[in-house]
Amino acid sequence: MTDALSIARDLIRCPSVTPADAGALGVLEQVLTAAGFTCHRVTFSEPGTADVDNLYARIGTEAPHITVAGHTDVVPPGDESAWSVGAFSGEVKDGFLHGRGAVDMKGGIACSVAAVLEHLAAQGGKPRADGKGSISFLITGDEEDVSINGTIKLLKWAAERGETFDHCVLGEPSNVEVLGDTIKVGRRGSQSGTLYVDGVQGHVAYPHRAANPVPDISRLIVAISDEPLDHGSAQFQASNLEFTSVDVGNSAYNVIPGQARAKFNIRYNDNHTQASLRELVEQRLARACGNRIRARIVWEPSNSNVFVTKPGPFTDLAVSAIEEVTGRKPELSTSGGTSDARFISSYCPVIEFGLVGQTMHQVDERVPVVDLEQLTKVYRGILARYFG
Amino acid sequence: MTDALSIARDLIRCPSVTPADAGALGVLEQVLTAAGFTCHRVTFSEPGTADVDNLYARIGTEAPHITVAGHTDVVPPGDESAWSVGAFSGEVKDGFLHGRGAVDMKGGIACSVAAVLEHLAAQGGKPRADGKGSISFLITGDEEDVSINGTIKLLKWAAERGETFDHCVLGEPSNVEVLGDTIKVGRRGSQSGTLYVDGVQGHVAYPHRAANPVPDISRLIVAISDEPLDHGSAQFQASNLEFTSVDVGNSAYNVIPGQARAKFNIRYNDNHTQASLRELVEQRLARACGNRIRARIVWEPSNSNVFVTKPGPFTDLAVSAIEEVTGRKPELSTSGGTSDARFISSYCPVIEFGLVGQTMHQVDERVPVVDLEQLTKVYRGILARYFG
Repeated sequence: MTDALSIARDLIRCPSVTPADAGALGVLEQVLTAAGFTCHRVTFSEPGTADVDNLYARIGTEAPHITVAGHTDVVPPGDESAWSVGAFSGEVKDGFLHGRGAVDMKGGIACSVAAVLEHLAAQGGKPRADGKGSISFLITGDEEDVSINGTIKLLKWAAERGETFDHCVLGEPSNVEVLGDTIKVGRRGSQSGTLYVDGVQGHVAYPHRAANPVPDISRLIVAISDEPLDHGSAQFQASNLEFTSVDVGNSAYNVIPGQARAKFNIRYNDNHTQASLRELVEQRLARACGNRIRARIVWEPSNSNVFVTKPGPFTDLAVSAIEEVTGRKPELSTSGGTSDARFISSYCPVIEFGLVGQTMHQVDERVPVVDLEQLTKVYRGILARYFG
Repeated sequence: MTDALSIARDLIRCPSVTPADAGALGVLEQVLTAAGFTCHRVTFSEPGTADVDNLYARIGTEAPHITVAGHTDVVPPGDESAWSVGAFSGEVKDGFLHGRGAVDMKGGIACSVAAVLEHLAAQGGKPRADGKGSISFLITGDEEDVSINGTIKLLKWAAERGETFDHCVLGEPSNVEVLGDTIKVGRRGSQSGTLYVDGVQGHVAYPHRAANPVPDISRLIVAISDEPLDHGSAQFQASNLEFTSVDVGNSAYNVIPGQARAKFNIRYNDNHTQASLRELVEQRLARACGNRIRARIVWEPSNSNVFVTKPGPFTDLAVSAIEEVTGRKPELSTSGGTSDARFISSYCPVIEFGLVGQTMHQVDERVPVVDLEQLTKVYRGILARYFG
């Protein structure tokens, strides 16, 4: 059975809580191999984390090459006795397919696989009737937890094999209320750091012999917080810096402390790169410090760079396919949290379109069967336009 | 033996580390009774603290009444093996009397007792030859530690008996470098508090749904720190507020915290009372908050009120006596830490003049024998002028 509902049910019945695979990738490998894909199972390791299985499957050898990305791992079900049906039963009830991963994102993968199989069948078993074009699947088992042995390594592995991707569709649950309301075309970057201000410790009765870092760090917090980082861009709201903590830890009322520190996080848009953003904040800090305040920033490592797939032919064909099937014109959104799209964006333009996210990570995660049918049609429409 | 050196040595030989008396008050009681004083031993208790002995001794029944205050308790000797001579031996070596309390302040008490005895002998056994005038001693055994069962209670006890004091000399080590350099005539007040700012917790990616208290408390710290509380007074330097800590304790970079707090301490002069100071700071806080920031101050309890004995006949006669003996014109100082003078100041004008503080609380605390002789002469000069 290669319709979306059947594939989704088979996937849900594999209790693939990260890092377990529990047979999930095998379900896909079997279906895709039968359809003519060349499949590679790739296991990645890292000291201190569990080994994780990944799947790369491709049909066709020529451009244009569209890859469909996703993950078969799921978050834990929590208290299974709280579920109406078994969390891994894949039961259909009152028009809904139930189970962990139904929307995030076994359901989305199932729709994309079903759509690709239908598309290939219509094209004589090839991505395009003329024999050109390629379709691939980049499926990981390490997205929901630390994301160390997953997409980031699979992309590198593929690049080292000479694989190049022209475009990517990631089937994460992108819609907020109803199918068709939202395509995600980017994410803000995230960068954290700690600001340290050094003063001179002393007795509170003799402040002239000390240098209190508390008013100084307060001045810096105000100066750095108050000036906007930018005023937004075509695809993004304005970048924002928030100080999330300020700490001294001095319990003695008669002691002026020697150091103060403040943690901050920046969500930034495509007016910046990580490097230019750090430079901008350092410049503002230096200006606020003048020659008087001794301060420094320690930046946290970050792999959450900003990325955006700008409106153009690729987003247009997705919008057109969604409108045709759902009657809705989706918003091109850059809001929300992070996904593997941040890694893929370094290799090719990527959009996220999948199911409706409302029940994801919750008890009784479920998807209307009609949504699976509609999403399959949307993916078929995207493929038809892409290779048309 | 009723010379200062003998009395000081007898006192040092009593290991009266707070709250132990170890016979110290008895040494004084015996000498003073022999000189015609009426002595009262008063023991005070408080749940959670040790009982402490105190001594009140008076000669004469009429005004003017000068009281000499002091404490016979001492801080611990620390590592006694580090001392050149026994910490409680009272040994004289190379012209110095050694031992814990030599300067703080068994030496000072000994000088005052010796001076009073000499004065009485010269006046026919009375404070004044005409039979008027009173001299008393207010001696506590609870100054170096919590100061709960000491001077504060002894003053109240005396007031309830109808005792009134016209002036007080407290023999704490007031001199910084050499005998005669400093009379202490007051102390700044000390008042601590904690500033709380309430915001609304939220996710750092959605700051419009949260209210970050970190920039707000920073603004308040700058606003409250930057505006001087006053510009000093005749006897005092300017009052000063120091923020000694600011804390949130949020370790999550993706969370905007719900509350921030900052501790501060104020050292204030006689432009303020405790009540007016609190009101001033609250007003400035309210102005800095406007209608937007939700903040409040929790004040710490404080018994360190500001006090000052203004220049006048009483300080003049002390200065004159010191100049005559030492050849130095002492500074009338209001700097430094707290003493029992802060309690006495509620009952009568008080000045502090004693030995040189350099070795107090240290290993090998010691006093030049010549300083004991000179301080005794200063006290005699004060008494002669007071009753002259």
